[in-house]
Amino acid sequence: MSTTDIEDIARRTQEAHAVFSRTAPEARARALTAVADALEADGEVVAIAQAETGLTEARLAGEIKRTAYQLWAFAETVRDGEYLDARIDTADPDFPLGPRPDVRRCLLPAGPVLNFAASNFPFAFSVLGGDTAAALAAGCAVVVKAHPGHPQLSDRCAALASRALTGAGMPPDTLQLVHGQDEGVDLLRHPAIRVATFTGSVRGGRALADIAAARPDPIPFFGELGSLNPVVVTPAALRERADDIVSGYVTSVSGSAGQLCTKPGFLFVPAGHGLDDALRGAAERVAEHRLLNPSISQGYQQRRTQVLDAAATVVAEGAVRVDENDNAWATPTLVRVTLDELIAHRDELLEESFGPLSVVVEYDELGALVPRLAELFPGNLTATVHCASDEVSDPQIAQLVQLFAQHAGRVLIGGWPTGVAVTAAMQHGGPWPSTTNDTNTSVGSAAITRLLRPVAFQSAPQELLPEPLRDDNPWGVPQRRDLP
Amino acid sequence: MSTTDIEDIARRTQEAHAVFSRTAPEARARALTAVADALEADGEVVAIAQAETGLTEARLAGEIKRTAYQLWAFAETVRDGEYLDARIDTADPDFPLGPRPDVRRCLLPAGPVLNFAASNFPFAFSVLGGDTAAALAAGCAVVVKAHPGHPQLSDRCAALASRALTGAGMPPDTLQLVHGQDEGVDLLRHPAIRVATFTGSVRGGRALADIAAARPDPIPFFGELGSLNPVVVTPAALRERADDIVSGYVTSVSGSAGQLCTKPGFLFVPAGHGLDDALRGAAERVAEHRLLNPSISQGYQQRRTQVLDAAATVVAEGAVRVDENDNAWATPTLVRVTLDELIAHRDELLEESFGPLSVVVEYDELGALVPRLAELFPGNLTATVHCASDEVSDPQIAQLVQLFAQHAGRVLIGGWPTGVAVTAAMQHGGPWPSTTNDTNTSVGSAAITRLLRPVAFQSAPQELLPEPLRDDNPWGVPQRRDLP
Repeated sequence: MSTTDIEDIARRTQEAHAVFSRTAPEARARALTAVADALEADGEVVAIAQAETGLTEARLAGEIKRTAYQLWAFAETVRDGEYLDARIDTADPDFPLGPRPDVRRCLLPAGPVLNFAASNFPFAFSVLGGDTAAALAAGCAVVVKAHPGHPQLSDRCAALASRALTGAGMPPDTLQLVHGQDEGVDLLRHPAIRVATFTGSVRGGRALADIAAARPDPIPFFGELGSLNPVVVTPAALRERADDIVSGYVTSVSGSAGQLCTKPGFLFVPAGHGLDDALRGAAERVAEHRLLNPSISQGYQQRRTQVLDAAATVVAEGAVRVDENDNAWATPTLVRVTLDELIAHRDELLEESFGPLSVVVEYDELGALVPRLAELFPGNLTATVHCASDEVSDPQIAQLVQLFAQHAGRVLIGGWPTGVAVTAAMQHGGPWPSTTNDTNTSVGSAAITRLLRPVAFQSAPQELLPEPLRDDNPWGVPQRRDLP
Repeated sequence: MSTTDIEDIARRTQEAHAVFSRTAPEARARALTAVADALEADGEVVAIAQAETGLTEARLAGEIKRTAYQLWAFAETVRDGEYLDARIDTADPDFPLGPRPDVRRCLLPAGPVLNFAASNFPFAFSVLGGDTAAALAAGCAVVVKAHPGHPQLSDRCAALASRALTGAGMPPDTLQLVHGQDEGVDLLRHPAIRVATFTGSVRGGRALADIAAARPDPIPFFGELGSLNPVVVTPAALRERADDIVSGYVTSVSGSAGQLCTKPGFLFVPAGHGLDDALRGAAERVAEHRLLNPSISQGYQQRRTQVLDAAATVVAEGAVRVDENDNAWATPTLVRVTLDELIAHRDELLEESFGPLSVVVEYDELGALVPRLAELFPGNLTATVHCASDEVSDPQIAQLVQLFAQHAGRVLIGGWPTGVAVTAAMQHGGPWPSTTNDTNTSVGSAAITRLLRPVAFQSAPQELLPEPLRDDNPWGVPQRRDLP
């Protein structure tokens, strides 16, 4: 793609943004709904996605449902208007620091967004995924940089969404699609782009974050990268429900062939757990699953070899088989180390394995484990504690939860981190390296604030205020007056 | 300062943070109030500040009042609890995407904060200024890097605050102070620091932002840098109130010797305005005012020479006089150019002059001016429109306000941008280069969110939830349930 083409895309997104950013909530909500409906109504996308990604039909059908739901949910977020954080401080002649003018503030669309799509959720984190839905909800025109793992699906999704958006009265080019790494980088450097979002690897995300930060005018870059997702099982929890823990763990590790950023990568269990046979049995009952693409397959095989070389004990060896079409198929690999071994081999072990591999870590004393966890797991999307029902008042468990809350975006008590609920209270994003920016989420309705920017209006007559700040409140949004 | 000293400061701030971050709102609010009271009660600080900065006693007394007010206001923000954005989604077995667990999310203290103090507000943007108040309110331990322009005042403020904080039961080292540029940079690179704030020049802020972004683990950096603060006066506004505009403008340009980031740097008036004599008269009536320090004086004199060389017409020449103590004293300099001249000399003119200098720009047609403004003023803290009372429904004025809202953090209709109200609806921060991160504010209670990080808790029993997310709501904070 030539420089002229990039300039053309940039100009189009600015033009679309100028109109789209001023649409009323109801119109924008209907446009989001139209995109969701169009996606659900398309009879071809599942087959295209299956061919390009090897994900199962059931998983892809579920993902379409989730993707449509995200768009519908954002439509409700837009209608609700709470996200605008409208604040009104009326003029106060008796203000302690001297007479205060009328000041009103709300969030406005930040500008055209560049969204780097992910490979592992060809719907939910791709062209019409959460980042795009959030940007459209926020009132920002979007350029999606397609993931090379599913180019045809990307084209089809962009086309159906563009038809739905223009059909709903939104300007052409509200959503555009580009292919190619260079094209993505050129756009990331372009002054027209005001915010960028990304879901992918630590290496790729860091490279793009550095580019965004090095621009003559740096822009916010929200990258969701990799995560190890530690799970700690207490001795009492193991006594209470060992079978459930084994089956839940193996299911969570192997679902979607482990190609999920919330896959539990490390399971801490007390020494003497006696779980090897059960773990091996559960792992061996998992059918082989295709890996998404050659790049992921290659990366996974390298990581797997590295982990197998570093780990003391192989619990379930698993395999990677390459078929006649050069597709790779994987079964779960589980290894076991002691806490001391993990610490000794931290450089080899403490890195994400993007595939169905997980490390079981034996600890002797919970009290000795907890202080090491912060240093071993400085930043994660999730961290999970499995404790027994009578341990919830144990100060040691409280300490563990507090520690995890400082180093992860989501802390689970029981359950498994895969399966991220799309809801207002979800937090999908934690300290580096799980994201490039942990002040926000990429799943759930709070994600919309990444694409907005606060603006205050001082002494503005009603006619010149944006709708959310007017006294007659034409959009009916929540307005908070005289907050402290 | 040695590496050992830096490590010691880092360890202390982490230890203080571990305790301070878990204090209850009422205790933290009282601690903030204690700091404010201690500042107001100190009989020496004004004299120290006067000697170090040359600011007037009246201005400094007002600034102390403002600084104390900021601390009190943040105490109320902490008590109110709205800022925690507590969201509760209870478990939902009928959730459209399958049974949903209980998920609860709120903002938690991000970690130890490093605050680079400013020179021009030795109280309100320095050791006990807005960034420190916001960090303490958020529950973050703070290390302040003192500005070299007022070292003794910085020491005294840090000491009085530390006494007040420990007196209020907060841990030692909740607030620490360091001197020295290298020390600031070493700390900015230290893993213990989780967020940094800054108020100062574009060059200094950019250098530090780049360091924060280049860390092995990048951290958020909130720098408030420079701003040109354009003001557009319509022909009708000039007919309606030329005298008020002249006096308001010159007062705003020359207050605190123009050493304010919201000083109006460019005043757009219609050609044929006939204001030269009035502007000169008003400027010549302004008494000379000391510049803050040798570095600012030198920078201002260089900029002033550059502007005088580039500008066609000098309206009021002003002067910079260096006294026997090497202090520099300035009177206002006003120059005038046409819009075409501004565009021709944009490289010399379109940069902040940190001192009492401003550029009057003549335009022929408002309709021709407006489309040029975005390109000339891409990012500013403020932008102001002076229109006549019967112009508020004029589409051209609406267009101008919308354009300014895309390129500034605060848009004023009438009035002058200096004098930033400390209030919940204030927005002090706009697109680059006015800040390094325009998603937030550094003035007003919304500033607290820069120092917080969202964390979700999934399926957590009540005992393991942080207070803001518990059903019995022991802190009485606003909790929003089942938001879309």
